[in-house]
Amino acid sequence: MKSAREELWFETPHRRDYINITDRVQEFVSRSEIREGLCLVNPMHITAAVYVNDDESGLIQDIDDLLERLAPHEPVSGYRHNVGEDNADAHLKRQLMAHQVVLAITGGRLDLGPWEQVFYAEFDGRRRKRVLLKAIGE
Amino acid sequence: MKSAREELWFETPHRRDYINITDRVQEFVSRSEIREGLCLVNPMHITAAVYVNDDESGLIQDIDDLLERLAPHEPVSGYRHNVGEDNADAHLKRQLMAHQVVLAITGGRLDLGPWEQVFYAEFDGRRRKRVLLKAIGE
Amino acid sequence: MKSAREELWFETPHRRDYINITDRVQEFVSRSEIREGLCLVNPMHITAAVYVNDDESGLIQDIDDLLERLAPHEPVSGYRHNVGEDNADAHLKRQLMAHQVVLAITGGRLDLGPWEQVFYAEFDGRRRKRVLLKAIGE
Repeated sequence: MKSAREELWFETPHRRDYINITDRVQEFVSRSEIREGLCLVNPMHITAAVYVNDDESGLIQDIDDLLERLAPHEPVSGYRHNVGEDNADAHLKRQLMAHQVVLAITGGRLDLGPWEQVFYAEFDGRRRKRVLLKAIGE
Repeated sequence: MKSAREELWFETPHRRDYINITDRVQEFVSRSEIREGLCLVNPMHITAAVYVNDDESGLIQDIDDLLERLAPHEPVSGYRHNVGEDNADAHLKRQLMAHQVVLAITGGRLDLGPWEQVFYAEFDGRRRKRVLLKAIGE
Repeated sequence: MKSAREELWFETPHRRDYINITDRVQEFVSRSEIREGLCLVNPMHITAAVYVNDDESGLIQDIDDLLERLAPHEPVSGYRHNVGEDNADAHLKRQLMAHQVVLAITGGRLDLGPWEQVFYAEFDGRRRKRVLLKAIGE
């Protein structure tokens, strides 16, 4: 069995950003030399998520609108977590987006459908944060 | 290490359908001859989800009602993604349902609790779509 | 390849409880003697979830408030599943929390960011229920 581990680092310009990381995950898989296996893509911070969906700007705005509707950033004082913090909504938004994904590796490549794209969703940005990539297989 | 990969194909009669695929995943695991491992069940389309919950018709309607309440299909024009499309809600519903599952394989079988059933949730049906099954183990 | 399997048992005092299980999952990983791999943490009951987020009491209350707002327990009769049952909301809350997690194992330990904590979320408690731990690796 082989395994590989890397981190992707981010420092996004806005509080919330949605970044397509599919190519970076594929490059990791290629470096790992794993041909058949599974790859976990997991944010190491609890105010961010990794998800798979379409890379289409209207949809990304729709996702952001949905999350703001269900767990709005303001009023900041509406959350009990926000004592000296203002990111409770980020902790909640990440849950609603299912926070992590596992991807198949087949023939040395990510085994994705034609429109599956892997995204890093930042909900409390403007500081350095990371995503863990961990693959096992052979 | 062993690995196995198959696809399940669907063409559902309605826009939204909820299909119990537990037996089909179990059959895949049996064919794989993997005794101990993990099995990813992942929709290859981004307007569908795979989830684990009860196979009870009232609950399935409750799930559908919840998703329609949080991310309604109409008005179609309420979503920015819907320029020449009408399926933005399907992209959102899938996120709220957590889009994929990983199942344990123990003793050559899916290691599920007594009521855990694996479902394919179609949110933009009436066309051919597929689910990826990928298992690794020994 | 190595694999390991254990169950964690719970009987929580309230209908809804949020229990930090990080140490118990780490102890399982240590016993498994797996150095590099993946670990599935999956509730075997469909009215509970496993998730990763902060261990902060205000946030836990914010999560509970969000889930009660999106899928309230009452009125019990508002759900079709509740024929002789009163736990439809628990089935829905678990979906919104993404129901399971996969964790990386690196160097024999859970490979978590500084604030990542693993929680068992009970939505229909006061009876015995379990979580499956399944790790594979080497």
